[in-house]
Amino acid sequence: MKKSALQVARASYMPKMPKALRGQVIAVEGNATQSVADQDAIKNLFPNTYGLPLIEFQPAKETREYAPIHTGVILSGGQAPGGHNVIAGLFDGLKALHPDSKLYGFLMGPSGLVEHKYMELTADIIEEYRNTGGFDIIGSGRTKLETKEQFDKGLEVLQELNIGALVIIGGDDSNTNACVLAEYYAKIGAGVQVIGCPKTIDGDLKNEQIETSFGFDTACKVYSEVIGNIQRDCNSARKYWHFIKLMGRSASHITLECALQTQPNYVIISEEVEANNLSLDDVITRIAQIVADRAAAGNNFGTVLIPEGLIEFVPAMKALIAELNDFLAENAVEYARIKRSEQRNYIISKLSAKNAAVFASLPHDVARQLTLDRDPHGNVQVSLIETEKLVAEMVGAKLKQWKEDGLYVGKYLAQTHFFGYEGRCAAPSNFDADYCYSLGYNAACLIGEGKTGYMSSISNTTAPASEWKAGGVPITMMMNMERRHGEMKPVIQKALVKLDGAPFKTMAAEREIWAKETLYIYPGPIQYFGPTEVCDQPTKTLQLEQQK
Amino acid sequence: MKKSALQVARASYMPKMPKALRGQVIAVEGNATQSVADQDAIKNLFPNTYGLPLIEFQPAKETREYAPIHTGVILSGGQAPGGHNVIAGLFDGLKALHPDSKLYGFLMGPSGLVEHKYMELTADIIEEYRNTGGFDIIGSGRTKLETKEQFDKGLEVLQELNIGALVIIGGDDSNTNACVLAEYYAKIGAGVQVIGCPKTIDGDLKNEQIETSFGFDTACKVYSEVIGNIQRDCNSARKYWHFIKLMGRSASHITLECALQTQPNYVIISEEVEANNLSLDDVITRIAQIVADRAAAGNNFGTVLIPEGLIEFVPAMKALIAELNDFLAENAVEYARIKRSEQRNYIISKLSAKNAAVFASLPHDVARQLTLDRDPHGNVQVSLIETEKLVAEMVGAKLKQWKEDGLYVGKYLAQTHFFGYEGRCAAPSNFDADYCYSLGYNAACLIGEGKTGYMSSISNTTAPASEWKAGGVPITMMMNMERRHGEMKPVIQKALVKLDGAPFKTMAAEREIWAKETLYIYPGPIQYFGPTEVCDQPTKTLQLEQQK
Repeated sequence: MKKSALQVARASYMPKMPKALRGQVIAVEGNATQSVADQDAIKNLFPNTYGLPLIEFQPAKETREYAPIHTGVILSGGQAPGGHNVIAGLFDGLKALHPDSKLYGFLMGPSGLVEHKYMELTADIIEEYRNTGGFDIIGSGRTKLETKEQFDKGLEVLQELNIGALVIIGGDDSNTNACVLAEYYAKIGAGVQVIGCPKTIDGDLKNEQIETSFGFDTACKVYSEVIGNIQRDCNSARKYWHFIKLMGRSASHITLECALQTQPNYVIISEEVEANNLSLDDVITRIAQIVADRAAAGNNFGTVLIPEGLIEFVPAMKALIAELNDFLAENAVEYARIKRSEQRNYIISKLSAKNAAVFASLPHDVARQLTLDRDPHGNVQVSLIETEKLVAEMVGAKLKQWKEDGLYVGKYLAQTHFFGYEGRCAAPSNFDADYCYSLGYNAACLIGEGKTGYMSSISNTTAPASEWKAGGVPITMMMNMERRHGEMKPVIQKALVKLDGAPFKTMAAEREIWAKETLYIYPGPIQYFGPTEVCDQPTKTLQLEQQK
Repeated sequence: MKKSALQVARASYMPKMPKALRGQVIAVEGNATQSVADQDAIKNLFPNTYGLPLIEFQPAKETREYAPIHTGVILSGGQAPGGHNVIAGLFDGLKALHPDSKLYGFLMGPSGLVEHKYMELTADIIEEYRNTGGFDIIGSGRTKLETKEQFDKGLEVLQELNIGALVIIGGDDSNTNACVLAEYYAKIGAGVQVIGCPKTIDGDLKNEQIETSFGFDTACKVYSEVIGNIQRDCNSARKYWHFIKLMGRSASHITLECALQTQPNYVIISEEVEANNLSLDDVITRIAQIVADRAAAGNNFGTVLIPEGLIEFVPAMKALIAELNDFLAENAVEYARIKRSEQRNYIISKLSAKNAAVFASLPHDVARQLTLDRDPHGNVQVSLIETEKLVAEMVGAKLKQWKEDGLYVGKYLAQTHFFGYEGRCAAPSNFDADYCYSLGYNAACLIGEGKTGYMSSISNTTAPASEWKAGGVPITMMMNMERRHGEMKPVIQKALVKLDGAPFKTMAAEREIWAKETLYIYPGPIQYFGPTEVCDQPTKTLQLEQQK
């Protein structure tokens, strides 16, 4: 297999680890914990894994013997840079516990456990994947581990392979399910520990205990690299407005972080749109005003960052989509009979006045998209809407109107971009390489201590890696009860962008001047070999959040 | 102005230079040269700048005195990484000739010369831009310098500023015009030398004398970085076909280079499509066959690289577009009266049978696009066609048909990407930083020798920079006569991908196995600080072309 020069050179990078994990460890236990809300309900659902103490590892003074423990590992959900290093750290940690420990990877996500598809991850295989991006070592998948049947089926293969611990690397939902599985295996005395690891480029799995999810750092740096390049182009050609959509449907952390790294002329934060009950027209008007103001100063160019999930955070759009979902589900047959050229007017005539007005205000293509392809649940596929084009086009329409009204003089040419797949499988930054390796190694330590229902936790992450803290957080501690598909479920609270948090407030304090001036920052590509201030810095989000 | 850590660290990079340029130089002249074709015609048009000798600089044994020479510089056309280093090298070279030499930048491209918009580039300003991407130091533009009026108008400001030399940094057309300007100023005894520098990310300005144009290296590395990341995602999720379009309308060098760097499952090369007189359906069928073959092996995923200019290289599409241009120009009023829903059938009924069939075979959106927005000359705006979606959709339609016919079993989900603006203004790779600085410094040497009508030339570029050769190539030497807008014009020959050249042949020899296996290479981001095999390698194209 041919490799690039960088693949070859990067393979030998030794991830930096917290001092506490470098030799044998002892687990220092804190007080009993509580869930973040709904304590009684969560306690009832998790009698065996509720209320466990926080754990912090310290270097051990005395040497201990550990028995070999075979462990399974699963990559769950979307790719995030550093997943391979979690597995490498886990492998090394297990071997440090006992050289006869084995690591098995379940293939293509949680379904590998249920369908008994797996491979042993030997030292040779692990070597090939150190410090690389991607989840291709064992693949990933989106099957949800939720049912007793799945758990029992999984247990068959775990027992067959004599596996005593399972590490699930995933986002908030996958870690919720890891805890449900931990509880179930504890309840039936299956003898299988379950440990979670916090993964997601979206950055929405974080809380008091978990400072950041892995992959966020690298993905944001890749996006910021290309945003910076586009901004330099924008500032050289001085003739385009670039509308750049960034992955992340459920929260705007990526978009906010990239804005902090690159200082675009405007950035939309979905959480702010929702909190202020803004309409799409409000958002468009704001951007058009910035375009007009810059044009008045002779600058017919600029950049706008857009979070992928915007549409679903606009209250009026949410209402429209909900009514469309219901209406089209009930009238699918009749709608299918309407001539293509009549469909638009048909929909407008059937919706409630308020939603009909919103629908009519959308560009034809977007409106049409909302009435087309449905997902398997019959819902509008919001992810297929090209929000970046929608915004660019609506801003253009608004400016055209203003020009006719004599309110705007300028040229408006738009370019659109969407970045997502470009960042999910990049080779991890030093931060993610170190953080992931430590998370995995630390997971092995939790296994060695016999823990279950814990999430591997590395904290103090804005300090040099040697000073990072390592330990475990009971997953139940992060849970509350939320309505999902009509039922109350215990789930890990998703972290949205906080409008009173330091990252948002820092951006908000500067955005007026970003809009007016051209203060682009050009972060450039991730560097692996240079000075530490270039290679080892965590995200602005993390730095601002952890700032005392 | 806030800067990123990398901007700060990279500012102090000292570009590597050929040994020959490190002290004072002497110009060693070769024999008189000839144009590559149409010698009599070119000689007639360029009596003052035709037949000049090739020049190679050697270290001088004796010190010479140079008078101060004020010089103007113009960035012409699309951005390319390294333009700022050409200017920095030029500045340093001029100051080495004489500290009182001044450098003026004309603003926003050639129009700055004609409209007398300029700024002096002082040492302070130059310092801010060393080793950075973009053309924002003075901006760029696409005005063509072609008329006597422009030349005379430009001369006014040159004389006003006492400028004795002009450096034009541009692609093939800009360098052609630089030579026309050199000839004109020589003819009228204006006392202004004109020197060109070979710029374009497209890589289509190269020939026997000029090994590569600057920016190609960096841009291809940025695109290959994100293509590699997408491929790793593709190979992890194992559920998408990614169709990736790359900038470069007039030649497929970028797409070919990126393919050599990343080994996708398929790569379209426009020049091959044209040479083999392939239809769009031929291209689609080939890709669909690869999708089907991979599906049969259980691999419902893959990557395809597509050059931006594809449509214009498909002979049948070229014919269709030509007829559409003529027909719509003649029937604009009547067409405007046709109802939107009837336009498609109207066009089909009016075109010749062959072109009507091609038109009818296109997805509705693309066909519609071809009849919409026209450029200022009334032509179809081919660049607005989303070729990557066109190909993805047509492959899907073909597979659907095959599935119905029982010829294909598999899942087909497509994602599309277009990369262009992401790479044009990246901070230059070491190669481009060194190459550009040397080109600029070398241009100053040509100015010092009193040359005009030359292109700055740095060769032997696959050797370490210290061994690069520096000199000048008479621009007339690269010219031939071509028909442009109905008139025969002297132009620099554009370099298309040669089907018998080493880069194409290397790809062609391996593509069957790339299609079948999954042999992706992941180049990762450009590195500025690491080992030389990671940081200093030229493109695969250059390495293969220069291989003896």
